[in-house]
Amino acid sequence: MTKKQLKFVGQSVPRVDGIEKVTGKAKFTGDLLIPGMLHGKILRSPYPHARIIHIDISQAEALPGVVAVLTAADISDLDPYYNGRPLIAIQKVRYVGEPVAAVAAIDELTAHEALSLIKVDYEELPAAVGLAAALKKGARLIHENAANNICSHEHVEKGNVEQGFVESDEIFEDSFTFPMVYHYALEPHSAIAQVNDEGITVWSSAQHPFQVRGDIAKIFRVHPTKVRMIISFLGGGFGSKSYTKFEPLVVALARKAGSPVRICNSVTESMLTVRRHAAKVRLKTGIKSDGTLIAREAEIYIDTGGYADNGPQVAIRAATRVLGPYRIPHICSDAYAVYTNVGGAGSFRAIGAPQTIFASESQMDMIAAKLGMDPAELRRKNFLKKGEELRPKLRGMDANLASDLKKLVSASEWKKRSKKKGAAMGLACGATNAGATPISVAMVRLQPDGSLVAFAGSTEMGQGVRTVLSQIIADELSLPLEAIQIGGADTQVTPYDASTGSSRSTTLMGTAVLRAAHDLRSQLLKIGAEAFRVKPSQIQLVDGAMICGEMRLNFREAMERRFGGSGGELIGHGDVGPEITGTLPVFWEIGMGSAELDVDQETGEVRIKRYVSVADVGKAIHPEGCVGQEEGAAMMGIGHTMFEQMVYEEGGELLNPNLIDYRVPTFSHVPSEFHTVLVENEDGPGPHGARGMGEGGLVSVAPAVTNALARGFGIRIKDLPLTPERVWRALKDKEKGK
Amino acid sequence: MTKKQLKFVGQSVPRVDGIEKVTGKAKFTGDLLIPGMLHGKILRSPYPHARIIHIDISQAEALPGVVAVLTAADISDLDPYYNGRPLIAIQKVRYVGEPVAAVAAIDELTAHEALSLIKVDYEELPAAVGLAAALKKGARLIHENAANNICSHEHVEKGNVEQGFVESDEIFEDSFTFPMVYHYALEPHSAIAQVNDEGITVWSSAQHPFQVRGDIAKIFRVHPTKVRMIISFLGGGFGSKSYTKFEPLVVALARKAGSPVRICNSVTESMLTVRRHAAKVRLKTGIKSDGTLIAREAEIYIDTGGYADNGPQVAIRAATRVLGPYRIPHICSDAYAVYTNVGGAGSFRAIGAPQTIFASESQMDMIAAKLGMDPAELRRKNFLKKGEELRPKLRGMDANLASDLKKLVSASEWKKRSKKKGAAMGLACGATNAGATPISVAMVRLQPDGSLVAFAGSTEMGQGVRTVLSQIIADELSLPLEAIQIGGADTQVTPYDASTGSSRSTTLMGTAVLRAAHDLRSQLLKIGAEAFRVKPSQIQLVDGAMICGEMRLNFREAMERRFGGSGGELIGHGDVGPEITGTLPVFWEIGMGSAELDVDQETGEVRIKRYVSVADVGKAIHPEGCVGQEEGAAMMGIGHTMFEQMVYEEGGELLNPNLIDYRVPTFSHVPSEFHTVLVENEDGPGPHGARGMGEGGLVSVAPAVTNALARGFGIRIKDLPLTPERVWRALKDKEKGK
Repeated sequence: MTKKQLKFVGQSVPRVDGIEKVTGKAKFTGDLLIPGMLHGKILRSPYPHARIIHIDISQAEALPGVVAVLTAADISDLDPYYNGRPLIAIQKVRYVGEPVAAVAAIDELTAHEALSLIKVDYEELPAAVGLAAALKKGARLIHENAANNICSHEHVEKGNVEQGFVESDEIFEDSFTFPMVYHYALEPHSAIAQVNDEGITVWSSAQHPFQVRGDIAKIFRVHPTKVRMIISFLGGGFGSKSYTKFEPLVVALARKAGSPVRICNSVTESMLTVRRHAAKVRLKTGIKSDGTLIAREAEIYIDTGGYADNGPQVAIRAATRVLGPYRIPHICSDAYAVYTNVGGAGSFRAIGAPQTIFASESQMDMIAAKLGMDPAELRRKNFLKKGEELRPKLRGMDANLASDLKKLVSASEWKKRSKKKGAAMGLACGATNAGATPISVAMVRLQPDGSLVAFAGSTEMGQGVRTVLSQIIADELSLPLEAIQIGGADTQVTPYDASTGSSRSTTLMGTAVLRAAHDLRSQLLKIGAEAFRVKPSQIQLVDGAMICGEMRLNFREAMERRFGGSGGELIGHGDVGPEITGTLPVFWEIGMGSAELDVDQETGEVRIKRYVSVADVGKAIHPEGCVGQEEGAAMMGIGHTMFEQMVYEEGGELLNPNLIDYRVPTFSHVPSEFHTVLVENEDGPGPHGARGMGEGGLVSVAPAVTNALARGFGIRIKDLPLTPERVWRALKDKEKGK
Repeated sequence: MTKKQLKFVGQSVPRVDGIEKVTGKAKFTGDLLIPGMLHGKILRSPYPHARIIHIDISQAEALPGVVAVLTAADISDLDPYYNGRPLIAIQKVRYVGEPVAAVAAIDELTAHEALSLIKVDYEELPAAVGLAAALKKGARLIHENAANNICSHEHVEKGNVEQGFVESDEIFEDSFTFPMVYHYALEPHSAIAQVNDEGITVWSSAQHPFQVRGDIAKIFRVHPTKVRMIISFLGGGFGSKSYTKFEPLVVALARKAGSPVRICNSVTESMLTVRRHAAKVRLKTGIKSDGTLIAREAEIYIDTGGYADNGPQVAIRAATRVLGPYRIPHICSDAYAVYTNVGGAGSFRAIGAPQTIFASESQMDMIAAKLGMDPAELRRKNFLKKGEELRPKLRGMDANLASDLKKLVSASEWKKRSKKKGAAMGLACGATNAGATPISVAMVRLQPDGSLVAFAGSTEMGQGVRTVLSQIIADELSLPLEAIQIGGADTQVTPYDASTGSSRSTTLMGTAVLRAAHDLRSQLLKIGAEAFRVKPSQIQLVDGAMICGEMRLNFREAMERRFGGSGGELIGHGDVGPEITGTLPVFWEIGMGSAELDVDQETGEVRIKRYVSVADVGKAIHPEGCVGQEEGAAMMGIGHTMFEQMVYEEGGELLNPNLIDYRVPTFSHVPSEFHTVLVENEDGPGPHGARGMGEGGLVSVAPAVTNALARGFGIRIKDLPLTPERVWRALKDKEKGK
């Protein structure tokens, strides 16, 4: 790709979907109307663990307005399992809220009324609510083939950890816990399904349309191209809409009803559908007396709920992410996804990272404190250098960590402010090997009038992907932004994209659209070269035209030249595969943060008065968008650090499934001073040196805050969230010299 | 393109849309339901020519269930003209049936009832119904800027025709008339329009989706990409659904109603919407005594109705098509489209050809008779040789006419049968310079499992285009037909295509898909070459796999290799522009025919007992499909030859707008012996040497039949159709020695 003047990339242009959004014209799945559409409701299990003895749907079916009632009896011809779960409970339920039956009716009220007419006989089974109960010796197995309720196990090893501990001067061993939290996207899960002779069409709030397509095709035994996923705007995702959620159930219901069916979850239902894995992390680290890390052993348990869902993937990430971005010669890390009788856990912005990095970055500060070293210096000393491998089979570090930390130290005025008397200031360095799968395909189509339509399967969920992709195309083709149209994913129309997740879209779909635009550019230059009788390399693209000396041919004219009249189109396509970096991860995502606190010692209430976040983005395609992502991520981190947690009673019921009882950050929690530093070394694998961002800002918050508490008040809290009670007790314990 | 073994091309494979069609699952526009859809009806003018004084819609608007009533008053913000007509009558009406107002209501009955509540005051104006009335001196002008009611004039000149007549030994001058006929596609015109923030969506029975998109964009002053045309299956087109029909009216009504609106024409309404141009042709031809053509003068008037519509294009074709496929040194041809106060005429299978070729091929036989030459020999003598130009600025003849005629002579057993006593056998040679615009773009997308989805904007209207395109792709990629999916046109999805018409799809879209498949093939070979460590040219494609010696990689494996896992897609694209042949026409369409008749001399009833048609198709991609097209065309020719004609009374009302009074051929009219010969010299510009067909079979029928009447019974009929009365009178006149 030619190095060229950038007019749009690097500028905070107005969002291309801005007007639609602010005028309320943008359509979300729940806004759509499909002809003949029925409304569905789901009957959910009231028990955390039970056998289904019998379901009587006769009364529900008899209710006027009810068109279909779905149970496991209706899906015997299907291959009903995906992500380790059936599309509707088969013989057993494994969490409170598991779908047992579903009703399609002419309106929501009728569907709701019909639910109460379905009679289910259950035989209750002993339940294991939470990690401790599930791991207890002799605990009832939730899946018979999963001994000790272990769903999956990831083991990472390097060197000889026992030998490493022998060689160490000091050994630190600590345990940390992280709460169960919910994404709280404004839009709960919504889907509409239609099954007819043409195939299966699903309108859904899905971040991974092509993966959902694949699951539905497998379940319903049809070819993937006979499943059409159409994705409108999403009202936030954060991973909650990754992978397949309840779409197969909606399809099965629509199939039985013979009409399209829509189901929109309530917030409560969505909280029972997906959440972040609660975790327990034991971390043992051996060091030399100068602070050099020698060995680390980690043991991680994550609560994946009644079904595997994305638990195995989260465990895989957690086992590596707990290692931090540090050079450690001897490693032994084990992460276990554990079945429990609660709602399923899945992807959530930086999977497996906040839980483990909270542990490792807390312990780094404990080590620094013990050694009397500056925590920044301890980290700097142990950072992976650029290109250095964390462990075998993992691509080396692609960012300059020491330089990033220097920027954090400088922007946070660490040296001055952290030493002030009474200061409660902490920092943390998050780095995650992005899980971004390098498969994206894009297409751009130049219209006869010289305008362009871009086809990219990325889901716009507020992150601004349509704007970023438009900027990349605009610069490659020297087109004004207004000349570019870009829509949503439609698997029948937009080319294949692995997912919208893992901070991957700018890097991977960005590269695919850049390649597609470049392909189109080559076709244009060929037309220009013939017209001007020069070599393509002698032609410049400027504002929708080709220029060579005095000669000028705008794109419309080029099209007319190609096609001998008005009409035709030029198609450019681009794809990206594993060649982009050879080995994975495609990029490391770097987010470092520092926090300064105010603590009300009477109440234990913690307030973050100043937060500085450093994101090594390689290249900020849209700087304001990056800052927004970073600040949004930090606020989400503030949520799980300070007050968010889903509370389950022993009976398996979620006690706070709503915005009254489940607390999320509000504007009052925004730090008074809130700074983001974007590092742009143009060293990422994406367009113009960009790398993924938007998750990194999340992971450093909790350890930065708890480290600040430790430094300012001498209390080390290893369990989140930092409820006033917990902080107050820690302060009191310290006073008492405990 | 590599010359390769053909497995599908040239085989009469089962139609890819066959099962959908025969099971009734195929959706036509009238089958579609759009959420919130209203039903529209059109109030049409009862006068052939009148000024609109006032329209009172208040009572109609007040009828419960009526949502909107549209008149010209609602479109003042638009650019309402297309094809020379306003989307709804503005101030004046120019034919009985012209849309004056339209109603959108909750159901069809309400809309229909509302029509009767609209009060229109007209001031009647003198009307000119038919060519004679419109061309009469002092006839009232139908459009004030069109002197003598001439809508357009095409003039073709070569050599010096006056000089040519001076050099001629004999001169023949005759006049012929051709009736006004209707296409009678089984499905009348249907459209659904929806106007919302996302733009304008139109589901329509349109052969030219991209041209309709362009017209609507211009009328409604929006960008073409904001107009989405979605085309389901068509229940026959034959040109009746070419260009824009009533779609803009439906869009304007939907815009006013604020809801989607569907209007499905009745057959009567469709007959008032479009038809073939009635024509009057005066033909003067000078020859040498050995039969060599020297000079031709033609004067052609075609009845284009109240608005231009496609009349100018038809006139352009007619002026050249009247010349036949013959070498004539001196030419002067004038064709005039004439405004008349009847419903509009437009494209109809072989525009401008049956009218003029009936004249010229009749006269060829009159010349032969006069000279005592065999009519086949006269034609052979004068045929253009391959590569020879008919007139300047026209690509030379691309078929071997003499050889085609030889095939007709042989298959019809002309030499034996035409000389039998009492034989009534005639022949004719049609050749038309196809109007096919060489702009087509196509795309093929290989899915992760190795199956393929093809995107081509051709409309499937029964002609089998989806099957033919699938065959071409299947052979280029060595894929089984079942692995290929191909759908309908959707201007937001399928790439640009100029039209489905002018017999162009196999040649032009066929080339585009072939190029797209070839592009994909190259991408596959690159993957294969890397995998096998050989050159791409060493690899063969066999049944969805790449093979080189013992090595084998199927397409699914190739995809996995490219993308490092399951997912991704490969996009191949292809476009075709004027480079395909350099000058126009892209191809000559050749259809020759011979007819043998039985005539009931008591009643004048003519029956065709044997008909042989020769189509020079270059290469028959789907032989049975070609035979079906040729026979279908011949049957349509039998219709206008034998009995079809739209009859207007002087007051401007169509007297036979239905299947009872307007006679179309039935199975009883199928010739007892009906043969089609496909000539395959692989000399066309399309895939594998194909050229367009499907129109050629139409044009020779009328002259072959009238020539047979002349040869068998000594009567020369110059006016169609051959009603029993007309034939009986001619026989009687001959008896009387008139």
